[in-house]
Amino acid sequence: MNQKPILVLTTGGTIDKNYFYALSEYQIVDSGIPALLAEARVALPIRVVELMRKDSLELTDADRALIASAAREAPETQIVVTHGTDTMTETARVLATEVPSKTIVLTGALSPARFAETDAPFNLGMAFATAQVAAPGVWIAMSGQVFDGLKVRKDRAAGKFVAI
Amino acid sequence: MNQKPILVLTTGGTIDKNYFYALSEYQIVDSGIPALLAEARVALPIRVVELMRKDSLELTDADRALIASAAREAPETQIVVTHGTDTMTETARVLATEVPSKTIVLTGALSPARFAETDAPFNLGMAFATAQVAAPGVWIAMSGQVFDGLKVRKDRAAGKFVAI
Amino acid sequence: MNQKPILVLTTGGTIDKNYFYALSEYQIVDSGIPALLAEARVALPIRVVELMRKDSLELTDADRALIASAAREAPETQIVVTHGTDTMTETARVLATEVPSKTIVLTGALSPARFAETDAPFNLGMAFATAQVAAPGVWIAMSGQVFDGLKVRKDRAAGKFVAI
Amino acid sequence: MNQKPILVLTTGGTIDKNYFYALSEYQIVDSGIPALLAEARVALPIRVVELMRKDSLELTDADRALIASAAREAPETQIVVTHGTDTMTETARVLATEVPSKTIVLTGALSPARFAETDAPFNLGMAFATAQVAAPGVWIAMSGQVFDGLKVRKDRAAGKFVAI
Repeated sequence: MNQKPILVLTTGGTIDKNYFYALSEYQIVDSGIPALLAEARVALPIRVVELMRKDSLELTDADRALIASAAREAPETQIVVTHGTDTMTETARVLATEVPSKTIVLTGALSPARFAETDAPFNLGMAFATAQVAAPGVWIAMSGQVFDGLKVRKDRAAGKFVAI
Repeated sequence: MNQKPILVLTTGGTIDKNYFYALSEYQIVDSGIPALLAEARVALPIRVVELMRKDSLELTDADRALIASAAREAPETQIVVTHGTDTMTETARVLATEVPSKTIVLTGALSPARFAETDAPFNLGMAFATAQVAAPGVWIAMSGQVFDGLKVRKDRAAGKFVAI
Repeated sequence: MNQKPILVLTTGGTIDKNYFYALSEYQIVDSGIPALLAEARVALPIRVVELMRKDSLELTDADRALIASAAREAPETQIVVTHGTDTMTETARVLATEVPSKTIVLTGALSPARFAETDAPFNLGMAFATAQVAAPGVWIAMSGQVFDGLKVRKDRAAGKFVAI
Repeated sequence: MNQKPILVLTTGGTIDKNYFYALSEYQIVDSGIPALLAEARVALPIRVVELMRKDSLELTDADRALIASAAREAPETQIVVTHGTDTMTETARVLATEVPSKTIVLTGALSPARFAETDAPFNLGMAFATAQVAAPGVWIAMSGQVFDGLKVRKDRAAGKFVAI
């Protein structure tokens, strides 16, 4: 479609969770997104910026302001944001207001990228395609679907995102 | 964006290659696409039809006519075709002529889906998003990019698809 | 060496931990051991019994008595026990006293079997071989090594088992 | 059991096969064994020597003499040999004659180590344990079993090794 560069902002979430036996708990670690993009043989110019490593329930207004600022100030107009799923729609609303003229796609995963079975690479692929194809605005790519970022909610019990 | 159902037509290619020790060779096998879609937790209505299991160098005009016919006759207007990479652009040209009013996305993989490291799920995610977001026409989703299906070629030496 | 059947007793531990996004935490789940044995194409007669699903720090004296009883009463004389690593040596001591005449091998994993990168299948392979080859007694197979179960400790800081 | 160092000799075989889309064929590549041992968190002193990269049907008498020589001259007394499965028993016979006083374990895989589903790490784990536990002699670790290397054959049709 085009070969404009893509900016990837990572913020944490399940997609980047790892398990530490020494603590018998999981933690968000250095982002696995660059490895996923290499495995996918992405040949576009890309830039990956790790903004934070947080469970999305812990994101503050200041964190969201930082994400919006990074998206707005970047030279790229096609932006993918990896994000925890619990408050993904909240960040979408902030970005829709603060960065209206770029194509921004939020995605994440229900199962960590480090698992043998994970939705991470598929979701990241959806986000990359949407960033290239969709009109300016904020989109959410999850559950095999591309949603208007302002018209979607996470159905925690059903384990999927649904249009509203 | 919408929740229209997606039709997936599988035709073979590297994405569905497996290795058989008994023969000490690889062969295209029953499609792994349904398993990939389950792992990706796709919550859209989808229908997967296995049309053939061929290396794309072996596809005949009759095979391409069958793919076009399956795409045209289907009730779905958003179609993903998994396909070997060597003649993917040739099939794209046939589909652009024969099925002009639907959104058709061809994709495949450079490394089989059954490998631990593979571009298959990322590419399939790109195809799903493009089928939902892009205008009617024929698209190719490979190498991290969404290409106009009539303006792309495979650069075999470089191991990627490039715009022309 | 021989084709005597092998009994596998699963008790939980990191090897069988999974991650649940709905709770944003990991839990021990239905054992992945049968899937690992199928993937390894084990052609021996085996029997897998899930005794409990516990972090090994939660194992009680009653749990250990149950493990010992299951090992003692079984018709098999070659027994593999999957177990959390934190108290694996404690269970080894109980088994050495209670079931002296069988070959019992304890193993587990530092990284869950469901991860893309995990020591689980290698460790399980070590345990299967040891159960077939070693003399009656209690053995621990971890960190690439086969230890006398009474002469080993977990070095938590170093992330490995070491002989004492 | 002990912490004697282990020597790993790699000779090729399915365990180290990769798929090359540019040629649409598989080839034996640089050995994945060191990566498997790292993933398994092996904490023993080990040394890996890549002797050759051959399908075992292509191994010559000179190749087998080289394997035997490498095993005999090495300071290590516990040796693992990764090998194609088709002529594994033939190499076992040569080693039994030429290197009678060490514990040598041959192993390999029916599915390449680079596949998502593979018997490679389990088999390598069996080989490591057998090298530490078994008496001097030549052993074959495949199909979940440890065989006397002189009393086993590959049943190609059944896809497994069986005692004779």
